[in-house]
Amino acid sequence: KPTFDPKEHQHLRYNPLRDSWVLVSAHRMKRPWKGQVEKPPEDNTPRHDPNNPLCPGSVRANGEVNPEYDSTFMFDNDFPALQPDAPDPGSDHHPLFQSKAARGVCKVMCFHPWSDITLPLMQPAEIRKVIDKWADLIVELGAEYTWVQIFENKGAMMGCSNPHPHCQVWASNFLPNEAALAERCQRDFLQKHGEPLLVQYARMEAQAQERVVVENEHWLVVVPYWATWPFQTLLLPRRHVFRLPDLTAQERDSLASIMKRLLTKYDNLFEVSFPYSMGWHGAPTGSHLQEDMSHWQLHAHYYPPLLRSATIRKFMVGYEMLANEQRDLTPEQAADQLRKLGEEHYKMKKT
Amino acid sequence: KPTFDPKEHQHLRYNPLRDSWVLVSAHRMKRPWKGQVEKPPEDNTPRHDPNNPLCPGSVRANGEVNPEYDSTFMFDNDFPALQPDAPDPGSDHHPLFQSKAARGVCKVMCFHPWSDITLPLMQPAEIRKVIDKWADLIVELGAEYTWVQIFENKGAMMGCSNPHPHCQVWASNFLPNEAALAERCQRDFLQKHGEPLLVQYARMEAQAQERVVVENEHWLVVVPYWATWPFQTLLLPRRHVFRLPDLTAQERDSLASIMKRLLTKYDNLFEVSFPYSMGWHGAPTGSHLQEDMSHWQLHAHYYPPLLRSATIRKFMVGYEMLANEQRDLTPEQAADQLRKLGEEHYKMKKT
Ligand SMILES: O=P(O)(O)O[C@H]1O[C@H](CO)[C@@H](O)[C@H](O)[C@H]1O
Ligand SMILES: O=P(O)(O)O[C@H]1O[C@H](CO)[C@@H](O)[C@H](O)[C@H]1O
Repeated sequence: KPTFDPKEHQHLRYNPLRDSWVLVSAHRMKRPWKGQVEKPPEDNTPRHDPNNPLCPGSVRANGEVNPEYDSTFMFDNDFPALQPDAPDPGSDHHPLFQSKAARGVCKVMCFHPWSDITLPLMQPAEIRKVIDKWADLIVELGAEYTWVQIFENKGAMMGCSNPHPHCQVWASNFLPNEAALAERCQRDFLQKHGEPLLVQYARMEAQAQERVVVENEHWLVVVPYWATWPFQTLLLPRRHVFRLPDLTAQERDSLASIMKRLLTKYDNLFEVSFPYSMGWHGAPTGSHLQEDMSHWQLHAHYYPPLLRSATIRKFMVGYEMLANEQRDLTPEQAADQLRKLGEEHYKMKKT
Repeated sequence: KPTFDPKEHQHLRYNPLRDSWVLVSAHRMKRPWKGQVEKPPEDNTPRHDPNNPLCPGSVRANGEVNPEYDSTFMFDNDFPALQPDAPDPGSDHHPLFQSKAARGVCKVMCFHPWSDITLPLMQPAEIRKVIDKWADLIVELGAEYTWVQIFENKGAMMGCSNPHPHCQVWASNFLPNEAALAERCQRDFLQKHGEPLLVQYARMEAQAQERVVVENEHWLVVVPYWATWPFQTLLLPRRHVFRLPDLTAQERDSLASIMKRLLTKYDNLFEVSFPYSMGWHGAPTGSHLQEDMSHWQLHAHYYPPLLRSATIRKFMVGYEMLANEQRDLTPEQAADQLRKLGEEHYKMKKT
C-alpha cells in the first residue's frame, strides 16, 4: 500500500472551532470544469455616483442625505433583519415548533468616500480608521447586545449589492449558531487542555510555518488546517486578546498593515478584486462582559468562494449541504500559493 | 406593544433535526434587490449530444463507451472525491491537527436517455425506475459503507456541470457531519419523547396543513417550520420507514407521483427549470444495519436557492456564514405560494 500523501489521498480533518470535519480530496482538482462560469467583477465603478446611496451627499432609501464624509461613515441599515423592538413570539412551545424572540440592530459602515477603492488599495492610516470604528462599535453595541457581528460581503458573487467599500454590523440579543459553537468549543478546549485553543494554535502554526500566509509582530494569517473554502484564512493576534477594543494602538496599526498585505495577495491570486465574506469573532458582550471569557481569543475569518480562477468558484452544494463539507486542494497547497504571491497590488504595477 | 406577527416581526425558530436556529426576518422581502442577477438556465439543450459524456453511446473521460441505455444508467464517477483504497493518515494526532481516514466510492446515475428532460417532465413509471435504482444502491453500497448519500445537484446555479438529468451517490466509511447531526438529534428525541421525531412531526404537520405543499396516501411534503432556504421542502413518508429499500411497491409509485407533483410546482413557481440540491437521509448502513435504528425516519431534503424570481437567488453569505442562517419570508408564506400553484407543468401548457 502507498504511504499517505494528503495531496493524493482523501482524508478528513477536524475543525476544533466548529466540532466538525471537512473532507479533503485534493486529487479532485484534476477534473476538468465544464460548469457555471461567473461574470468577472466590473472594473468601471465611478469614484462618485450621486445615485449610489452609499456615496457622500447621496439620498438614502429613507430620505436622509449622507454627509460629505471624508473617512468612514456609519448609518442604520434601511432594511434591517434585526430590529430593537420586535414583540416576543411567546414561550411554551411544542418541542418541534419552538421559536424565540430576536432583537437587535443592523448598521452599515462605509470604509471610504470613494466607490472605486477597496481595502487593499487604501492607505494603512485609512484602514486604521476602519479598525478604530470597528472597536468603537463593539463598545457601543456590546454594552447592550450579546453578540455584535461585524462582517463584510465583498463582490457581487457574495451577494453584495453595492460596489462602494463597506461592511455591516448586526448586533443581537442572542448568541447566533456560529458564535455559540465557537463559544462551546473554545470553552471545552481550555478546560481540557489548560490553554486557550487559538492561542495555542497560533503558536504552533507560527512554528510550523507550513500554513502561514503573512505574519508580523502582532498578527498571523494562516490557511487553517481545517479550512473549508479553497483559500479560506484565519487572522489571529499573537497575544491573548478578547475583543477588538482591547487592541493597543500599535496592534491596530499592525492589523491595518497585515490586512493590506493579505488582501493584496488575495487580489493578486487571480488578478481580480477578490470576493469574500469576512467577519470578526470575539468574546460575547452584553451580560458576558462581566464573565470570565479567558477561553476566547479574538479572530477574523475570511471565506472566499473562488477555486480555480477569477470566474470559477467552489460550489458548496449537494454533498456539502446534505452530508459533509469537501475541499479540492489541501490547505497547505492553498497557503503555499498565497504565500508565494507578491505584496505589490497588481493594479499598482500596471499603472 | 403590537402583538407578534411572524410576517412582520423577526424571530428565531429551532431546527430539531440539526439542533440549531434560523433567523426569520420576513419583512426583509420589502427591500429592493440591486445585487447580482443570475443567468436564466438555457432552454436549448439538445435531446442527444454525442459529445456529452452522459448520453447513451458517448465516450467518457476514462475511455469507456456508454451503452445505448433506455432507462436509468449508472457508472463510477470519473473524478471521485472518495476512493475505496486511500491509505490511512495515521492516528495519534495533536488535538488541533486531527485527521482520519476517509474511504468510499462515488457513482453517477443518469435518470433518462434524453438530455432535454427533467424529473417533473418524466412519466411516473420512469421516475419509479429511478426510485428502484436508488433503493438498490442503498442495498448494494450500504452492505459495506456506513453512509450512502444520494443527491442531485440541479441547474448550473447549483454547481451542476452537465444538463443531462442525473444524480450522484457518494458512499463513505464514516458518518458525514450532517448525518451525524441527524443521527444524534433523532436519537435524543426518541429517548426524550418516546416517538421518532419525524414520525411525530409528519403527523402534526398533516393535521395543521399550514405548511403542507402536496400530500398523498403515503407521503407528505412540507416547508418545514425551521426551513432555511426560501422554498426548502422536506419529503416524508407517513409510515415509519428506515431506508429506501424498505418502501413497498405501492409506496414507490406513490413517491414517483408526489415527486412529479412537487417538482412541477417548483418549475411553475418562476416558470423556469427550478434549481436545487436534494438528497435522501435514511438510517445509517454498514455495521448499523444490525443496530436498533427506530429513532430514524427516512426523508428527503430539497434545498433550492431561488428567492424572488428565476434570476434572483438567496445568498447565504456574511451573516449566515459567520453568525446565523437567516430567511426573508416565513415558511408559511413559502408553503402557501407553492400550494396554490397548479400541477400542470408550465411547459405542457405552452405547447
Ligand atoms: O461532482 P460535480 O458535479 O463535478 O461537482 C459538484 O458537486 C459536488 C458535490 O456536491 C461539489 O463538491 C462540487 O463543488 C460541485 O461543483
Ligand atoms: O444585507 P444585504 O447586503 O442587502 O444582503 C446580503 O447580506 C445579507 C447578510 O449576510 C444576506 O442575508 C443577504 O442574503 C445578502 O444578499
